Amino acid sequence: MNKNHLSLNRILTALATIAVLIPCGGADLSDLKPVDSWKNVARGIWTASLGDMGGELRYTQFAAAPPKFEVLNDLSDSKFPFAPDEITYNLTPDNKILLRIPTLADETLYGFGLQLDGIKKSRKVLTLNVDHWSKGGGRTHAPVPFYISSRGYGVFFNTARFLKIYNQIGNRKDSLRNPPEVDRNPPPDEKQSGPWQALPQGDAVEAQINGEGLEVIVFSGDSLLDVVCRYNLYNGGGALPPLWGLGFWHRVHAHSNADQTDHEVKQFKDRDFPLDVIGLEPGWMSKSYPCTFEWQKKRFPDPAGFIGDLLDKGIRLNLWENPYISKHSRIYEKMYPLSGSHMVWLGIVPDYTLPEARQLLTNQHLQDHFGISGYKIDEVDGYDFWLWPDHATFPSGVSGEAMRQSYGLLMQNMLYNDLFRKRNVRTYGLVRAGNGAASGYPFVIYSDAYDHSQFITGLSTASLCGILWTPEARSAGNGREWLNRMQTVCFSPMAQLNAWSSGKKPWSYGNVTDSVRDVIKLRMRLLPYLYSTFADYHFKGIPPIRAMILEDGFSKLQDELINAKLDSETNPYAMGRIIEKTDQFMFGPSIMVAPFYESQAIARQVQLPAGNWYDFYSGKAVGGNKSITVTAEDLSDRIPLFVREGALIPMLTKAVNQSDKAYDHPLEVRFYGKTGGSFTLYEDDGRTFNYEKDLYRLRQLTVQKDQTGHFKLSETITKQDGPALFGLIEKLIVMTQ
Amino acid sequence: MNKNHLSLNRILTALATIAVLIPCGGADLSDLKPVDSWKNVARGIWTASLGDMGGELRYTQFAAAPPKFEVLNDLSDSKFPFAPDEITYNLTPDNKILLRIPTLADETLYGFGLQLDGIKKSRKVLTLNVDHWSKGGGRTHAPVPFYISSRGYGVFFNTARFLKIYNQIGNRKDSLRNPPEVDRNPPPDEKQSGPWQALPQGDAVEAQINGEGLEVIVFSGDSLLDVVCRYNLYNGGGALPPLWGLGFWHRVHAHSNADQTDHEVKQFKDRDFPLDVIGLEPGWMSKSYPCTFEWQKKRFPDPAGFIGDLLDKGIRLNLWENPYISKHSRIYEKMYPLSGSHMVWLGIVPDYTLPEARQLLTNQHLQDHFGISGYKIDEVDGYDFWLWPDHATFPSGVSGEAMRQSYGLLMQNMLYNDLFRKRNVRTYGLVRAGNGAASGYPFVIYSDAYDHSQFITGLSTASLCGILWTPEARSAGNGREWLNRMQTVCFSPMAQLNAWSSGKKPWSYGNVTDSVRDVIKLRMRLLPYLYSTFADYHFKGIPPIRAMILEDGFSKLQDELINAKLDSETNPYAMGRIIEKTDQFMFGPSIMVAPFYESQAIARQVQLPAGNWYDFYSGKAVGGNKSITVTAEDLSDRIPLFVREGALIPMLTKAVNQSDKAYDHPLEVRFYGKTGGSFTLYEDDGRTFNYEKDLYRLRQLTVQKDQTGHFKLSETITKQDGPALFGLIEKLIVMTQ
Repeated sequence: MNKNHLSLNRILTALATIAVLIPCGGADLSDLKPVDSWKNVARGIWTASLGDMGGELRYTQFAAAPPKFEVLNDLSDSKFPFAPDEITYNLTPDNKILLRIPTLADETLYGFGLQLDGIKKSRKVLTLNVDHWSKGGGRTHAPVPFYISSRGYGVFFNTARFLKIYNQIGNRKDSLRNPPEVDRNPPPDEKQSGPWQALPQGDAVEAQINGEGLEVIVFSGDSLLDVVCRYNLYNGGGALPPLWGLGFWHRVHAHSNADQTDHEVKQFKDRDFPLDVIGLEPGWMSKSYPCTFEWQKKRFPDPAGFIGDLLDKGIRLNLWENPYISKHSRIYEKMYPLSGSHMVWLGIVPDYTLPEARQLLTNQHLQDHFGISGYKIDEVDGYDFWLWPDHATFPSGVSGEAMRQSYGLLMQNMLYNDLFRKRNVRTYGLVRAGNGAASGYPFVIYSDAYDHSQFITGLSTASLCGILWTPEARSAGNGREWLNRMQTVCFSPMAQLNAWSSGKKPWSYGNVTDSVRDVIKLRMRLLPYLYSTFADYHFKGIPPIRAMILEDGFSKLQDELINAKLDSETNPYAMGRIIEKTDQFMFGPSIMVAPFYESQAIARQVQLPAGNWYDFYSGKAVGGNKSITVTAEDLSDRIPLFVREGALIPMLTKAVNQSDKAYDHPLEVRFYGKTGGSFTLYEDDGRTFNYEKDLYRLRQLTVQKDQTGHFKLSETITKQDGPALFGLIEKLIVMTQ
Repeated sequence: MNKNHLSLNRILTALATIAVLIPCGGADLSDLKPVDSWKNVARGIWTASLGDMGGELRYTQFAAAPPKFEVLNDLSDSKFPFAPDEITYNLTPDNKILLRIPTLADETLYGFGLQLDGIKKSRKVLTLNVDHWSKGGGRTHAPVPFYISSRGYGVFFNTARFLKIYNQIGNRKDSLRNPPEVDRNPPPDEKQSGPWQALPQGDAVEAQINGEGLEVIVFSGDSLLDVVCRYNLYNGGGALPPLWGLGFWHRVHAHSNADQTDHEVKQFKDRDFPLDVIGLEPGWMSKSYPCTFEWQKKRFPDPAGFIGDLLDKGIRLNLWENPYISKHSRIYEKMYPLSGSHMVWLGIVPDYTLPEARQLLTNQHLQDHFGISGYKIDEVDGYDFWLWPDHATFPSGVSGEAMRQSYGLLMQNMLYNDLFRKRNVRTYGLVRAGNGAASGYPFVIYSDAYDHSQFITGLSTASLCGILWTPEARSAGNGREWLNRMQTVCFSPMAQLNAWSSGKKPWSYGNVTDSVRDVIKLRMRLLPYLYSTFADYHFKGIPPIRAMILEDGFSKLQDELINAKLDSETNPYAMGRIIEKTDQFMFGPSIMVAPFYESQAIARQVQLPAGNWYDFYSGKAVGGNKSITVTAEDLSDRIPLFVREGALIPMLTKAVNQSDKAYDHPLEVRFYGKTGGSFTLYEDDGRTFNYEKDLYRLRQLTVQKDQTGHFKLSETITKQDGPALFGLIEKLIVMTQ
């Protein structure tokens, strides 16, 4: 029955492999073939292509930069993590491609993009479609088809297709590693070999797409973190935002005009609150939903003057837009033939795989938005009943499905490259959908979901797959919640208050106003530390915010516990609890953040990894490899922060209210530890892409004990091709008591 | 880019149509082609095939019987409901088939199978995959791809593929019927043409599959009911259960043995509760989950004797099974090569499209289960993490996806035909998944969902697509809920108590025991009426239980209201409320049922259609075309039942506790109305398929006023090729006061 259903390519594949097919009248146990085309493309990285990739979109073709081979090839030469024939595939007669990757019984899988319902994805079926976040199941704003395994490898499905993934769910009848059959309803006198299981353990990840070709990339490394770093490096390295992007962000009401916006900016100054970026919502356009991308002159009669005045005050302007174009836009007529069959909110959907379409938009943007620092790209996710249907057609021939999976990426790619990088001006912005190979884009994902616990989980899951995520604050039921949310936001990739709809300001909850101001100012003081953290993301692939499972002392602990089969009653590190520990995370190399949230609003448990850890504020040693309780009262309403042994934290000596004022600002270095440590402070101009031309500076800071037993700080400039950014180090503060 | 991605068939199609393709460098507005292959296959029925159906499964190939052309061609010659070129399609390069069926702005769509969240499916995106019921969105036990339109036609997608349906959602940019653009954020002084809409009205149903071919069937008729009847007749007519199947059913605990089962049967007798069928749950097998289908001899040492003893008492035995076969089954070895690549609960999954597989199972069943009345086929639905993955392969070459969509149907097809029909013995059973073209199968769908309101909705939605559904009772929080649920069950296709797990019996809630007994006995008294109702299903396609929108006086009312644009404040029949009215339904030709449930547990609103309606119990006229309130108190805790003008309700003069005792039992006829009416009483042997050979009897009952103004009943045997079933009519009771 299948002859007519094979594509040309499949027929060729079939002819090539026909010699090994077992003719059979019964079960076709030869439905799986080994993947035998593995190519080692960099240290610890192998690719293989199944079927015909000719007409398929790969996420890597949208990456911000080519692979950083020079960095990758300095890493260890990690081994391919599978036996040669162990990964198998099948091109089914109904145009599905199945890839089967074996797993062991004690193997745990993590990742699959920005998942807000937990980091552990073993024994789940996931549908990896771009979507609003709602109920899990895989659909999310950034369903990156990349997972990492507790066995120390990662797998990336490099395809802009909907993926359906069966993680250790499903038992092939020809597997030799199935659990034994157990009778669920034995007579009372019959003993069973074990309890009946509703979901018998599967022994593989089985991933499928409807498509003609699939590229798969395997990453191996010395640790889970190493695997993630190689993923980021292969995708061009992580994003390096401009320094101002790491300051504080605020958005005004959709119907605000120029005067009202200026007034809000002034309020921040009057109340001594930091502010680097102000964002406008849809009302800035002449028409929105669908959009014109042209200024609403009644609200903003002199856009250039308005933007210039803000820049004079050190404030950058960010513009909301969604990509769907109104009949009233002057680019509508030309864009019409370059857009897809279906509209979104009655606006046409440009096909930005076409150079003409990109040029039309970016020319218009350049002309109308000169001086804008970046964009907030809304509604490129959307449930099925928003956006275009999966069968929509586009003039380039790219399928509606592939376009949905990659539209957020495409927008980032176009704006980043054609609008900013081309002009050697950095940007930082927001977008509501991302996907694979996005590591290099200075865009953070945001969501209409608003569960604080899920928002914190997002910081961990995003870190596994080259995604930046902001748990932005919008509103709160009371001052305590407001403070807790603002604290979390200040320890995320983008510290943004997005309360345009609720009208909330940082000072809207009187009883916590000072604490809110304190945490924003703490973020500003941490700019030197944070900027270097992002440089590590860019140059080494190390995620700036990291899930605890990427920390050595944390994941090794787990492994030990699994082996020891410890009891959760007598030991607080039981597997289940630790693996799912997504309510604390790393912020840069040395700071562990454990926000208060929801049910844990004023007191919570913190799981300390192995090693010595210190309270950030007091320097008090708190131990390691154990669980402790922290309270808001003990911390004077500050966010719980813990620092690892040997850490140097370079900070501004005083908070500034704008990142521009951090330039040349004197520094202090806080040191936590018993014997010494070091930190590489990264500096560049903070605003351009000159760092790509090697124009940056590295200041190696080292703390060690001198002969009298006192800690001393030394500084060496190990690379000085770029400008200075921060000022001199004024003091070393040894925090350890 | 697409050349390599076209299948051979698509290349041929493309070559054939290339002359009409418009070459273009920009937007390809020629992506849709008109469907021009419509064939009129019966009165009011047209089919068209897109792509290549050669390797595709159609649901109609699993229908219980061929189309009833002889009946269809006696119906009116309804017109094709679309302009000739109006329905369009697209075979996309990525193997999707899209079908586009235009709709008008005021058109409402209903159906798409057993949907428990409402009957109206306009402006929704549905994924029609077989699944456990959970949260809607289309996935359900019987996601029949058939819908009906308020404009009086129906569309059936005759394919065992996953379907994604965009109902009036999505706006093509080249449509001439899009709503106007409205600015969502106008400046305060600008007036808009209307409110901004989050979901602009679409003007079509767009349905897509991943597959090579798609058959679509359009049904047209004089009314919505007529459209549904033609759907059922095209699929072979509705199911006619054996008479005993319409009696009362009960299931014993999974671990019950023969003595315990006998004891439960005896309890029904001792307490004067009707019982026709007793069901065994998994523990009857030697191993279950996965299954052997062989008797557990410790619990049932003498199956034949046990079955025979029950039959002597007039009790039929029904056996639970799921299809997944244990290594301990004696057919396992032979079935292994005839089964799919993946297991379910570690049992192999036979490919019942293969004759050898069917024979293996049915031979084993015949041998081991002789005397069994039927089966309860469990777990052929299942979430993604149960059952086999979509990419599973089967030895016949049928895809895992098609197998999932049709497995429930396949099981019905095999058991009905190979096990029962072949032996000229009728069966009635349960199954947890169905799909298109299932009208003829004497199986009811059931679910683990347990929301009483949803269960009632299911009675309506199932009626639109040839599905029988039972809102079986399992347990209840209190006596009131128990009574309400048992009442609903007794006015459904199968009156089953499935409380094996909770251990509940009909008499478990003392305060309502008499009322529960009353309603079961009422069902037994209604057997003559109900059996004729099912005969109408079989011979004429009229669903035995019907959604109110299929009633003339109900849907016409809606149309009037839409035209009149009446206000919901001043008129209780406002469109929104009536369209969603799924908490009442028709039971047979003349009885409208409005159960008490949940929030409406003891008092509720009932919407009376146009015409005169009467209280079933008292005969009191209650009016028509209005909403009334009924209370449990006024009805002495009986279920609200209303009878239409001119109805004759033939009943047994007294309740019997087993259907066997209804044979030759004298009848009474209740009459409700002002001038007269008639009823055709259907009779056959109640047990065999002889009715298919025309061996049945029709008794035409007529009530009219004689010259003195008194109502008189007359009876004429209009067909007498079969045996008598019920006895003589003892009395006419004129209910109207």
